[in-house]
Amino acid sequence: MNRIEIVGIVAGALSCTTFLPQVVKTYKSKSTKDVSLVMFIIATVSTALWLIYGILIDSFSVTFTNVIVFISSAIMLYLKIKYRNREN
Amino acid sequence: MNRIEIVGIVAGALSCTTFLPQVVKTYKSKSTKDVSLVMFIIATVSTALWLIYGILIDSFSVTFTNVIVFISSAIMLYLKIKYRNREN
Repeated sequence: MNRIEIVGIVAGALSCTTFLPQVVKTYKSKSTKDVSLVMFIIATVSTALWLIYGILIDSFSVTFTNVIVFISSAIMLYLKIKYRNREN
Repeated sequence: MNRIEIVGIVAGALSCTTFLPQVVKTYKSKSTKDVSLVMFIIATVSTALWLIYGILIDSFSVTFTNVIVFISSAIMLYLKIKYRNREN
């Protein structure tokens, strides 16, 4: 494996974990007032599309990465909606 | 252009905009208590790596997408740190 691909793999592995710290923080605090609903709607829809694209082009990397990001962004979207009535 | 590539392009265009609603919300509210610092550290570092990877493999799509996401996540990281002392 060359150095360029190592950069890509590290980038991909890190990207997978992007939303996990937010999920953990929100699960603990049960507060989402400052978190953007639109951000997680966009993240959930775009990763669902990336997932479909990964399956269609038969790419394991694209599919696998986006399964993880899709699940974490969908959980955050659920938490945001769940705790929405606590915002005032 | 076939239908599969249209799915990929829509996914990519949406992904570019993921953090923008959070930047706008935080710029207006000046409050980031519920936003995860670690999420935006990961997002900034991983998109910087994707950007380097895009340049190294000479891919316009990877580079262009990640310039936008890198800028928006770096702005959010800056805002999170800037408004951190308002959190208590």
